[in-house]
Amino acid sequence: MIRSRAAVLALLLAGLTPAPLAAQAGRYPVSGPQRLASPEIAADGRVTFRLHAPEARAVSVEGNWEGKKSLALTRGENGVWSAATPPLAPDLYNYAFRVDGLRVLDPGNVESQRGGNQLSSLLMVSGPAARDWDMADVPHGSVEQVWAPAPVLHQPARRMAVYLPPDYHARPARRYPVLYLLHGGGGDEESWLTQGRAAQILDNLIAAGRMAPMIVVMPNGEDGQSRARGSALGPTPSRIQAEQAPGSDARFAVEQPQLPEPYAGHFPESLVRDIVPFVERTYRTAPGAANRAVAGLSMGGAQTVVASASNPGLFGWIGVFSAGGMVGDPAFERQLGQLVAARPRLYWVGAGDADIARLRAAALYKRAKGRGLPATFLQVPGGHTWFVWRRFLVDFGARLFRPEGR
Amino acid sequence: MIRSRAAVLALLLAGLTPAPLAAQAGRYPVSGPQRLASPEIAADGRVTFRLHAPEARAVSVEGNWEGKKSLALTRGENGVWSAATPPLAPDLYNYAFRVDGLRVLDPGNVESQRGGNQLSSLLMVSGPAARDWDMADVPHGSVEQVWAPAPVLHQPARRMAVYLPPDYHARPARRYPVLYLLHGGGGDEESWLTQGRAAQILDNLIAAGRMAPMIVVMPNGEDGQSRARGSALGPTPSRIQAEQAPGSDARFAVEQPQLPEPYAGHFPESLVRDIVPFVERTYRTAPGAANRAVAGLSMGGAQTVVASASNPGLFGWIGVFSAGGMVGDPAFERQLGQLVAARPRLYWVGAGDADIARLRAAALYKRAKGRGLPATFLQVPGGHTWFVWRRFLVDFGARLFRPEGR
Repeated sequence: MIRSRAAVLALLLAGLTPAPLAAQAGRYPVSGPQRLASPEIAADGRVTFRLHAPEARAVSVEGNWEGKKSLALTRGENGVWSAATPPLAPDLYNYAFRVDGLRVLDPGNVESQRGGNQLSSLLMVSGPAARDWDMADVPHGSVEQVWAPAPVLHQPARRMAVYLPPDYHARPARRYPVLYLLHGGGGDEESWLTQGRAAQILDNLIAAGRMAPMIVVMPNGEDGQSRARGSALGPTPSRIQAEQAPGSDARFAVEQPQLPEPYAGHFPESLVRDIVPFVERTYRTAPGAANRAVAGLSMGGAQTVVASASNPGLFGWIGVFSAGGMVGDPAFERQLGQLVAARPRLYWVGAGDADIARLRAAALYKRAKGRGLPATFLQVPGGHTWFVWRRFLVDFGARLFRPEGR
Repeated sequence: MIRSRAAVLALLLAGLTPAPLAAQAGRYPVSGPQRLASPEIAADGRVTFRLHAPEARAVSVEGNWEGKKSLALTRGENGVWSAATPPLAPDLYNYAFRVDGLRVLDPGNVESQRGGNQLSSLLMVSGPAARDWDMADVPHGSVEQVWAPAPVLHQPARRMAVYLPPDYHARPARRYPVLYLLHGGGGDEESWLTQGRAAQILDNLIAAGRMAPMIVVMPNGEDGQSRARGSALGPTPSRIQAEQAPGSDARFAVEQPQLPEPYAGHFPESLVRDIVPFVERTYRTAPGAANRAVAGLSMGGAQTVVASASNPGLFGWIGVFSAGGMVGDPAFERQLGQLVAARPRLYWVGAGDADIARLRAAALYKRAKGRGLPATFLQVPGGHTWFVWRRFLVDFGARLFRPEGR
């Protein structure tokens, strides 16, 4: 259903009689609901939020910026509420309004992201510190939403996103190395694109010569594929909703922590047996472990640890973002020995300094280094959040597929 | 920022010590905010909406279904409001809650779509009448988000969506015909995917042998590309917002009806001079007008009329959905004569029986038929809406690239 201004435009064009139209075009008023400027981002990083809610009794805005994460809006003229943040550091944020207890997206902002089971409004404060994941006028890669068979998971097909570097289609003889990039618990195949800004990071760093042109495969790593249903391409929402009893939520019910079967696990197995072969027969991939990398964050970091340790020689480059390993467990230690023997090029581990996974990540790094893996560790300020993981993709990605490696 | 249940999962996996975990996994509670089942879709098509809003004074739900489009919710226990629709005909709908005057997406439903300048919650009632655009277990094509240069529009790059049929990657020697599929005013390159369900329609009809395997190119047809900023791949929202004065809305300011210059126009020219050559050098396209189709709805229908009439011999198959032409105008009539001489295979026109564009569409059909074009007309029940346009893609698409044509 289109809105009224669009309908006016459609009528204009559907019944085009050019001379009178040219004269009248400027006279048509903007007939859609007038939207407030929100968020308005000042040059110094201050962000003003506005919401037209004349009947509301209390309005606040909640965002994932540093410091005070909830900000009360004050009621002004005509029922417009507003508030401004202190200057925010350049980065990508998400937020929502809270209106009389109810979480509400910003109607002034159509940019949103899905994270876990909820949508949030999106906000980018530009600046040098966030330049690597800001949109720039550089050659852009394309991103495919593609379905791959998943027999290991007993599912006919699962969706993944595939980043193809800017020159992929124009150079049909060229083969590319591949990074398999895994999201965390509660995420899906869009997480690295929307929250992680992987496409912008790849575009920007490839253009600057700071990253090798590569294919990046972002599969849905939830065994039950309980997110990402229906959105544009996915299964239809009614499927699951029709099956569930009133008051229950099938989407939670199907999602159980998937435990590795020491140490393989459903998704790591599917990655290796379903996804890698599909990618290698579908895209122009360069062969061998030297051209194959895997990395993931949090749950995806644990999947990375499992997939790499249980398949020595498959991945030449391994990135563990905010996750640990089964250090000290005999079965894992045995696998680690096999991994060492396979001589991967890089075993990259990182965590935020306030990250819930910091100690375990540091322990994994120490053990990997001690066993003789080419391990490196990066700690940056921050918690278990995308602020940290975007930086990790920049650092890890820039090291991949280089002769000098680490 | 991940939510608490995801954090629990991440911790579990980051610190994996398998034996104790296996025993404990079942004991971890679902710690995220419990969500209500909404929308709940019964087998007979009744849809129950629920919203937890203990402080609200009035809650309704507004959707684009037939009949009473606004439905009051009643307050039940624990501040949960609910209401059920009568049985809805199988189809894809969108809706939002209205809470004390404020438009609110359904927090129980992460499926949303952007149409024009707003987001809506999405709802699919399955059933035979909507089977063509429901998700099915058939081979799926992939959808690329791709950037193409747009010198005609003086823009370095513009985004479009490209549907590649299921066997595209697996059959690297095969070439495919191409349909250029244009959205309406207020839409963007995602409209045909989210609102039009083009990928599901193509998947389903190709699998059933009812549609020829084809590439479908869905460009952003707003000259100013004023929508679709930032979402996953687009420019950063702050760009426009930082440039605009407080209280104004740059997104409206840049969007002006683009008038054809009798009869070419910016976007139709860009389609022909920027997009078609880009597609033909980027993808494995089959050559010639017999393998090139163009169709569009409303504004995109007008663009289709203009692009086809001003470029006779370029498109062999033409689909005008809910739009008319400049019937009777001498310049257009001259172009129409040239189009007739180029002998396209199909000139398909359609409108809903309550469509604001019905009379003009019928006039265009009559004129095209009268001039000797292989014209066909389809009228279905409905207005100027996606309910009609999804059906048009099914009917028009099934005729394309067939020896029998119309």
